[in-house]
Amino acid sequence: MKKIIGILGGMGPAATADMFQKFIQLTPATKDQEHIPLLISSIPDIPDRSTALLKNGESPLPAMQDYVGRLVNGGAQCIVIACNTAHYWYKDLQATCPVPILSMIETAADAALNSGLKNIGILATNATLATGLYKQEIEKRGLTYIEPDSSEQQQVMESIYTLKAGDLATAQKMMQAQKEALFAKGAQAIILGCTEVPILLAQEAKAEPRRYIDATLVLVKRAVKWYFEK
Amino acid sequence: MKKIIGILGGMGPAATADMFQKFIQLTPATKDQEHIPLLISSIPDIPDRSTALLKNGESPLPAMQDYVGRLVNGGAQCIVIACNTAHYWYKDLQATCPVPILSMIETAADAALNSGLKNIGILATNATLATGLYKQEIEKRGLTYIEPDSSEQQQVMESIYTLKAGDLATAQKMMQAQKEALFAKGAQAIILGCTEVPILLAQEAKAEPRRYIDATLVLVKRAVKWYFEK
Repeated sequence: MKKIIGILGGMGPAATADMFQKFIQLTPATKDQEHIPLLISSIPDIPDRSTALLKNGESPLPAMQDYVGRLVNGGAQCIVIACNTAHYWYKDLQATCPVPILSMIETAADAALNSGLKNIGILATNATLATGLYKQEIEKRGLTYIEPDSSEQQQVMESIYTLKAGDLATAQKMMQAQKEALFAKGAQAIILGCTEVPILLAQEAKAEPRRYIDATLVLVKRAVKWYFEK
Repeated sequence: MKKIIGILGGMGPAATADMFQKFIQLTPATKDQEHIPLLISSIPDIPDRSTALLKNGESPLPAMQDYVGRLVNGGAQCIVIACNTAHYWYKDLQATCPVPILSMIETAADAALNSGLKNIGILATNATLATGLYKQEIEKRGLTYIEPDSSEQQQVMESIYTLKAGDLATAQKMMQAQKEALFAKGAQAIILGCTEVPILLAQEAKAEPRRYIDATLVLVKRAVKWYFEK
């Protein structure tokens, strides 16, 4: 049976498209047929993850389980989730999914450890911060975790939702100020820990790859590696 | 039941990602949940369409039927195909597909008619030209069809396969020369009739939208319209 990777996306669609592009760019292919087989769910009616976690909103878990199920039924043999915050439900999703789900959070924390740098900043949603998803994984690896203070974090969130609403240029300016604030606090590298953030800081990450850990990019690298293993 | 659009892609993956981006850009959405639900097959092991048509190669039809079936099983209620040449098998695919497949070729020919221009050039694969896919639809609408001569067409093909192999910059230069040649032959507008071509002439199409009919773009517009119909 052929190896197909399923992308649970739609959270949001732009982040899903970014992950798709990264699969294409990171695959050593000289023709269509050498690219990695992907099935992509970009069904975006999944209840908002931040609202669920911070405002007791509807859980996104049933919808995510539904769409992962569709990918598996379609032949996916491995799943990646194009949303950091959604990883709060990672264990619940893996428990009902017959194929492996590669964790974006663990993969990004591993990349931070492998960077050789000690002070790791984070740009992510309020909900990702509140649940300690990255804090735990970073500190477990003996690294120092640095997050924005609360007024800065409000700007991070506003930037993310501005992108989701379609205004890339404004969102970019807001996020650029927040990565500067994290470096000023002593961060040596920053985890781009929300799938919208690598879209906003694409040029910076390209210019100084050592200072940015793009969680989407490192997860795609891991998935490509999974694909090419025997 | 919710409306989901299925994209039969992978022919190639870059063209599929381009179509996905166009869905995102053309949907009036202010948050994730307002975007159009998409299921995307980018399983690229579909036998090469041009080789099948011109060199008696393996037919891509069984693989395309397989992947359309996976999209329909996953809930797709309408299908779009991210490949012009693949439309040679449009009737065969529709015959075995229980939901409507929107034709990229007819949609692009309609857009040519609605442009009010008379002389319509075409940039497409050898196979799309050889099968007369666009010629028939253009002439049926009373328009004049203009294609590259054979040495020019060789450059068009080389450009498309150069992009599929990952070299965007070289492919762009080659395609720019060929659109100039078509305008010099009297074309008033050019159908970008291979899903790789809009990627190569993105800037030109943006600068002078009246002179370029992006088959991917007009199909996505039609699909968005289908989605928002009651």
